[in-house]
Amino acid sequence: MSTQKNIVILGSTGSIGMNSLEVIGGFPDRFRAMYLTTNKNIDLLQEQVDRFRPKGVVVLDEGKACELRKRVDGSVEVLSGEAGLEEVVTREEVDVVISSLVGFAGLKPTVAAIQHRKRIALANKETLVVAGSLITSLVREYGVDLLPVDSEHSAIFQCLVGEDRSRVTKLILTASGGPFLNVPAGEFAALTVEEALNHPKWKMGNKITIDSATLMNKGLEVIEAHWLFGLPGDRIQVVIHPQSVIHSMVEFVDGSVKAQLGLPDMKLPIQYALSYPERWPMNGARVDFPALRSMTFFEPDRDKFRCLGLAYDALSLGGTAPAVLNAANEVAVNSFLARKISFDKIPTVIERALTLHKTRSNPDIQEIIEADHQTREFVGTLL
Amino acid sequence: MSTQKNIVILGSTGSIGMNSLEVIGGFPDRFRAMYLTTNKNIDLLQEQVDRFRPKGVVVLDEGKACELRKRVDGSVEVLSGEAGLEEVVTREEVDVVISSLVGFAGLKPTVAAIQHRKRIALANKETLVVAGSLITSLVREYGVDLLPVDSEHSAIFQCLVGEDRSRVTKLILTASGGPFLNVPAGEFAALTVEEALNHPKWKMGNKITIDSATLMNKGLEVIEAHWLFGLPGDRIQVVIHPQSVIHSMVEFVDGSVKAQLGLPDMKLPIQYALSYPERWPMNGARVDFPALRSMTFFEPDRDKFRCLGLAYDALSLGGTAPAVLNAANEVAVNSFLARKISFDKIPTVIERALTLHKTRSNPDIQEIIEADHQTREFVGTLL
Repeated sequence: MSTQKNIVILGSTGSIGMNSLEVIGGFPDRFRAMYLTTNKNIDLLQEQVDRFRPKGVVVLDEGKACELRKRVDGSVEVLSGEAGLEEVVTREEVDVVISSLVGFAGLKPTVAAIQHRKRIALANKETLVVAGSLITSLVREYGVDLLPVDSEHSAIFQCLVGEDRSRVTKLILTASGGPFLNVPAGEFAALTVEEALNHPKWKMGNKITIDSATLMNKGLEVIEAHWLFGLPGDRIQVVIHPQSVIHSMVEFVDGSVKAQLGLPDMKLPIQYALSYPERWPMNGARVDFPALRSMTFFEPDRDKFRCLGLAYDALSLGGTAPAVLNAANEVAVNSFLARKISFDKIPTVIERALTLHKTRSNPDIQEIIEADHQTREFVGTLL
Repeated sequence: MSTQKNIVILGSTGSIGMNSLEVIGGFPDRFRAMYLTTNKNIDLLQEQVDRFRPKGVVVLDEGKACELRKRVDGSVEVLSGEAGLEEVVTREEVDVVISSLVGFAGLKPTVAAIQHRKRIALANKETLVVAGSLITSLVREYGVDLLPVDSEHSAIFQCLVGEDRSRVTKLILTASGGPFLNVPAGEFAALTVEEALNHPKWKMGNKITIDSATLMNKGLEVIEAHWLFGLPGDRIQVVIHPQSVIHSMVEFVDGSVKAQLGLPDMKLPIQYALSYPERWPMNGARVDFPALRSMTFFEPDRDKFRCLGLAYDALSLGGTAPAVLNAANEVAVNSFLARKISFDKIPTVIERALTLHKTRSNPDIQEIIEADHQTREFVGTLL
């Protein structure tokens, strides 16, 4: 790896992508944003091209790709479609791939990047949720560094630095509890999209913000943590911690607990995934404990936030079940965002899909893609 | 080092010593309590001899040593006095010395143990407070592991495992606040010995319990942390955290903070100092965050707890000043325990001693001992 790391950002116009560019911009000698990608937001992508001068970009949408090609006039290579994503992540000069596409779409380019021995900074949790077994065995096979960018998993990863992972007895994932922590379950049917998008602690994309409101986000993180750190579901605890200062914790065999804390800023886990095993300076406010005054902790209410229990169920079912959970959730969340179903129907739809699915164990990537497609189709007929 | 580690416990009849024996008793294949020592508590020492069958013991008090010799009748070697302490810590077969004498008395045997390349598990904070520069250069010179046993410093040490120490920007020492956290300063003159000995969180010896009530204990820990981890006083913050669940924290250049947490049990840092770099199982309750519900944080009140500021002053004066701080504090605390001075006079006495002392920089061990003696004499005339 050269002293300057060449980086691909899959999804540079999303929330993680924009934060990644800010981090990269802070270390021009060490990082180069070599390839940027977007689904269809070519206006923002063009601004990013002007500022960061990447070697190339990928636009998933073919029409938008053509449009951008005309605008940039040969000054930057413009690729398109899924093939474009796989092309750039596998190029020789690339060192690191920041995988921050939303949802299932992140899987294939991430697999390709691992097979070409790139360091993976993984913000796309669905990749591990749907194909954790596959991804972790590929990571081992190709000897690749897989660095989590989710603040919770980055916290756990940081707590494990220098520790023997076989000595871990429990992972404790903290959850802000989202905007509906104190809303009675009886009011869930009437909650609006606007209310659900109003997250108290983190500014994120729409999909993950809704997932935070249902606690499915935490459920997906439990599955992700299982694959990243090798603990079974019953050793991964979710604790509501509304201040979101403790990003997550690890308990060891001697009863010692290590926690990583910080202000809510995605730039920290992104930078750590890029600088690891080093830590590089980062400006910004610091946690001020006397000013914070208090941190609180609660059990999550699983009757109210049914998605959390469904995620634990899918993890213990194993095989294709988490892919079904994820696909059903993606469709249900999109339907909610499109105001086609009410907020309380999201877990109902997912539970239906999980119940009716015949789990296949040890699925290969084709079987996972099939389970994903079938679930989307099935859930579509439900709605 | 053999697979079974042979251990000397300096001060086995004290609080840390008894906890150390419990830890050692849990791993009979890995640890042997080879030498035990006491000041004069030969009854307890004899029980410990019966249970742990050490090769030898040291009784500091010569008369008591004679008495014990008659009782044990040659079944165990009985040494005496300071010479006895230095003798056992330097013996060939010894691997680890747990230094848990109270106060200044810990210095000389600890120095001897370092010079004989023993691992040091350091519970005697006064050793680093009075002679930090000397001790840390000896530790480097002899390539010795110096493992802190104080829960706060063990916490910081654990947070630094696998991290680059040059990337630390701040140490955050937590303090329970002691029994007088919410007692108005105006009532300090009337506080009794019994009230001061009633610590809310930790069961410890008398000296350290009074130091916790004045916050001098935290002040001594600031100085100790300076020597253990190399940060100046203005980068060592004390935060009141009455629940004592977070044992201390480290802030890094990227704003990330790592914390070590646990229930208040001295056996954890003792075991870690013995098992490091491994972690070994330990039974007992675990931190239950939802049951804990809340952790709180406050600035210490430096006007009320004047000892804390005096310790920072001594650290920035450097040289012999911390030795003066420590000696004045030991005499003042003993006078308070003997009901000769009131609680609020403890900082007054120490401040007087510090103000009148002419600090010598880079003192050798003789100059430190001299500063200690002169201060004890001077403070004696004050009282």
